[in-house]
Amino acid sequence: MKYPNGVKKEFKYLKSYANRGMNLEDDLNITNKYYLDNNIAVIYKKPTPITINKVNYKSRKDAVITEAHFKVPSTTDYNGIYKGNYIDFEAKETKNISNFPLNNIHKHQIAHLKKIFEAGGIGFLIVRFSKLNITYLLFIQDLLFFIENNTRASIPKSYFDEKGYTIKNGINPRLDYLEIIEKFGGII
Amino acid sequence: MKYPNGVKKEFKYLKSYANRGMNLEDDLNITNKYYLDNNIAVIYKKPTPITINKVNYKSRKDAVITEAHFKVPSTTDYNGIYKGNYIDFEAKETKNISNFPLNNIHKHQIAHLKKIFEAGGIGFLIVRFSKLNITYLLFIQDLLFFIENNTRASIPKSYFDEKGYTIKNGINPRLDYLEIIEKFGGII
Repeated sequence: MKYPNGVKKEFKYLKSYANRGMNLEDDLNITNKYYLDNNIAVIYKKPTPITINKVNYKSRKDAVITEAHFKVPSTTDYNGIYKGNYIDFEAKETKNISNFPLNNIHKHQIAHLKKIFEAGGIGFLIVRFSKLNITYLLFIQDLLFFIENNTRASIPKSYFDEKGYTIKNGINPRLDYLEIIEKFGGII
Repeated sequence: MKYPNGVKKEFKYLKSYANRGMNLEDDLNITNKYYLDNNIAVIYKKPTPITINKVNYKSRKDAVITEAHFKVPSTTDYNGIYKGNYIDFEAKETKNISNFPLNNIHKHQIAHLKKIFEAGGIGFLIVRFSKLNITYLLFIQDLLFFIENNTRASIPKSYFDEKGYTIKNGINPRLDYLEIIEKFGGII
């Protein structure tokens, strides 16, 4: 997390050169910044939810949190607006090559996406099979269909091939998931 | 809202008497939970943005954050969806009785709400004058109009009376701001 400058730079160079190790969250942040800067969409990652237990107020400006705990998130990580449409999604990576374990997503996150769909929003998962370097978008409707019709604890990659959409890797935007929303998201 | 007049009045009296110290954030959380439980809207407060510096991993489950700092938020505190419309707002309280100081809101939060408006979303402020027990909703359009036409560092209460909308205090929902969005938000 906190590397000496030289090491960090080196690491960044290697990352951008080979694009290995550039993780899904980085790709999405860069993509969302591109969307924002070009007035395409306003989509942000939410802060990590934590419970703060102790704060040291040396001065009002220099408050230091000295004890806090990670909370289970009650919603998804990303939401925002695209052409007037409410967008909401969760993004996950797996090192598996043939399936995506459902325990990667909390049950209430799926329930949340279902609520979003029912309220007229566009909800989906972005799932990257990092060893295959393939990133899929799977709409909540298709995720729910799978869960309701299967007892499996993981979604086979073949289901993503069948019902999901492959997100192209690019330069700008890096991971143009809105292209799929534009075509298949049922936007108004 | 849906109670016989007498009951409502009685409870309102009790509330205003007993409910001192119930702050705007609590009221909004209770209101948003009501909206969620009744399938009216899906609106959440975002977690407080922090930078995590040190984490103690005794075990994977019992991670304790031992050093973190508050970050300046890049967006507003609340967003979500109502009848397919993207909703985004910031909520603030002031102890002033005649004006709301603009330095209560970060400049980039105003810029964010402007972007939301331009993208077709519904953006606004909720401002409570706590000593007067009045809560206003002011749409971003009217906030921008004020800023562009004034050099004052605060918005007089009279501007809220003129351009804003008073949000009723109730039982369920506690602070029915969506009633105003329904009537005046230009929802589709």
